[in-house]
Amino acid sequence: MTPPSFEVLRAGTDTARLGRLTLAHGVVETPAFMPVATQGSVKGVTPAQLEDAGATIVLANAYHLAQRPGVEVITALGGLHALMGWSRPVLTDSGGFQLMSLAGLVRVDDEGVRYRSHVDGRHGFLRPEDAVAIQEALGVDVAMSLDECVPADAPPARVARAMARTTDWAARGLAARQRADVALFGIVQGGLDGALRAQSAGDLVALGFDGYAVGGLCVGEPPEETARVAAESIRLLPETRPRYLMGMGTPRDLLTFAGLGYDLFDCVLPTRNGRNGTLFTREGKLMIRNARHARDAQPPDASCGCYTCRHFSRGALRHLALAGEMLAAQLATLHNLFFYLRLMSEIRADLRAGTFPSRARATAGVWA
Amino acid sequence: MTPPSFEVLRAGTDTARLGRLTLAHGVVETPAFMPVATQGSVKGVTPAQLEDAGATIVLANAYHLAQRPGVEVITALGGLHALMGWSRPVLTDSGGFQLMSLAGLVRVDDEGVRYRSHVDGRHGFLRPEDAVAIQEALGVDVAMSLDECVPADAPPARVARAMARTTDWAARGLAARQRADVALFGIVQGGLDGALRAQSAGDLVALGFDGYAVGGLCVGEPPEETARVAAESIRLLPETRPRYLMGMGTPRDLLTFAGLGYDLFDCVLPTRNGRNGTLFTREGKLMIRNARHARDAQPPDASCGCYTCRHFSRGALRHLALAGEMLAAQLATLHNLFFYLRLMSEIRADLRAGTFPSRARATAGVWA
Repeated sequence: MTPPSFEVLRAGTDTARLGRLTLAHGVVETPAFMPVATQGSVKGVTPAQLEDAGATIVLANAYHLAQRPGVEVITALGGLHALMGWSRPVLTDSGGFQLMSLAGLVRVDDEGVRYRSHVDGRHGFLRPEDAVAIQEALGVDVAMSLDECVPADAPPARVARAMARTTDWAARGLAARQRADVALFGIVQGGLDGALRAQSAGDLVALGFDGYAVGGLCVGEPPEETARVAAESIRLLPETRPRYLMGMGTPRDLLTFAGLGYDLFDCVLPTRNGRNGTLFTREGKLMIRNARHARDAQPPDASCGCYTCRHFSRGALRHLALAGEMLAAQLATLHNLFFYLRLMSEIRADLRAGTFPSRARATAGVWA
Repeated sequence: MTPPSFEVLRAGTDTARLGRLTLAHGVVETPAFMPVATQGSVKGVTPAQLEDAGATIVLANAYHLAQRPGVEVITALGGLHALMGWSRPVLTDSGGFQLMSLAGLVRVDDEGVRYRSHVDGRHGFLRPEDAVAIQEALGVDVAMSLDECVPADAPPARVARAMARTTDWAARGLAARQRADVALFGIVQGGLDGALRAQSAGDLVALGFDGYAVGGLCVGEPPEETARVAAESIRLLPETRPRYLMGMGTPRDLLTFAGLGYDLFDCVLPTRNGRNGTLFTREGKLMIRNARHARDAQPPDASCGCYTCRHFSRGALRHLALAGEMLAAQLATLHNLFFYLRLMSEIRADLRAGTFPSRARATAGVWA
């Protein structure tokens, strides 16, 4: 099929489904987890190691990359894939979420986002049309519409205005689109308000995007609210399109929300935790610096086949972490990504075999 | 042959020679370069990447490892090879050089070295017998005798005393040896004084070691003095034993001193420079942060087949370095080690083919 395209290969016993997302740089079997490469690299691992771990798509950030090294430089270097040394699909967030998290540096109005660059302090102005143009120039596989993301405790009027603005921006981005081979996803906003979410989803679906994301979650709300909104929102989105739950989550979240029918996920947890010496295992989080691991010759996770678990003991990883060796972060990140990507692979295997989520639950261990 | 053993396979057109050093964990074709893994890891690369780059032996530091995580912990974890996740040979320096470089923290007398640990401040006492026992307990392939290393500007009497003490310690370490499968090397000292070097080498050879190292160089002396002493010292050492020039050097040094007949080398340059964004290439040092590389889509070294050069441009590496991405250090280190190890491989190929050093010179480029 001509990219971008999406097929639902098999529906699970509940709302979960196995899918195939065909993009300009390759095929992504879904549900899929996207390791985070904000500035063009997944911290601590080479693209070859990512491929070996089973990553088929990564998430980069168009705002960050436009600040540094800049679209023009990336174009001169052959595009984003060349910059990253990565030949498989890339999805970029447009930067709405990142701009909001830079707080005082931004001012949002209906036109777009005025900001001071976090890199060089220069003033910039990002309109939804620019966000699409930048992502098309980067040559990404999936571009995200510019959205306005507000904190969980924002007043209702602000949430409603951000939702309306996000829909307006989505329409403007869609109208500005030049490249049919770059998929464009709309982002559902509306905070924790079901009516706003419904309006947001309905309006976006009426506009017609290649895929839909649910954004504005994990911004400070309680987990049960996240789950409620994620569950309500997906029912508003067409089954024929990929559905992406942004910024999620723990291994348990992946199981839960893949179970609801979400197809794409991203999260910094496996990489950030890896750098901090926290490893995801079947038995839960392993804080590798803990003194009780000093003489432990067991691998981090006996059920894991990753490079780290095949070659390093808990005691060895603890030593490397305490000694400040860069390799500690590399090995823990590699393990965590492998754990996440293996879980997704088991979810897909379950969906293929009609056994969802039994294998995946076994892999997830205490996270199930 | 039963390890440890050493054969000279082929003498070159001059004093250079191709050798085979058979050790407990494998065979090292010489001349060989040993990447530095002071605390048990070569900073920034996995053991698998090291193997892929062609490393057959690495250098660790017994003093550092005895401080952290400690011999008893390493033993509980299955020995040094298990700690490192590395199955090929390991040579450890005993820590003489490292102790001296910690300056105010040490006091040396004829008995040994009294120090305060750089890790936890505890007082320790390292005798030459302890140094051998520690390295044997770690299960290394090659142990180094404890030596006293003095700065280049030390007064003559201090240089002479350190040399005599190093010989005495070598004899004591040899007498304390328990494991025949752990090779033990003596270290020639004597500063820049030819007569002292001759006495040191003669005494050590009379004691009889599995190999000999030339130490106490690159401690602040001018390069021509380094070269003179290295050239004089090797003539005092038996051709039937491996000869190790400690702490050397640049690619040019490797060519020069392999040409003199040295068999083993180690240096932090490829790894430390990699972390600082300096890449070794045929054309010389490439400072990757330099603005002129911003839009350069060429690989760091067009003649290089390493992972970094096959997948990343100079501009991409510059971006990753300026963005503070860990991957920049990883990729530069990988390239530098590949450059060093490829150079050694070309030196050996030249020696095998009787063409030394023509291929190696071509590989070394401006370093030849």
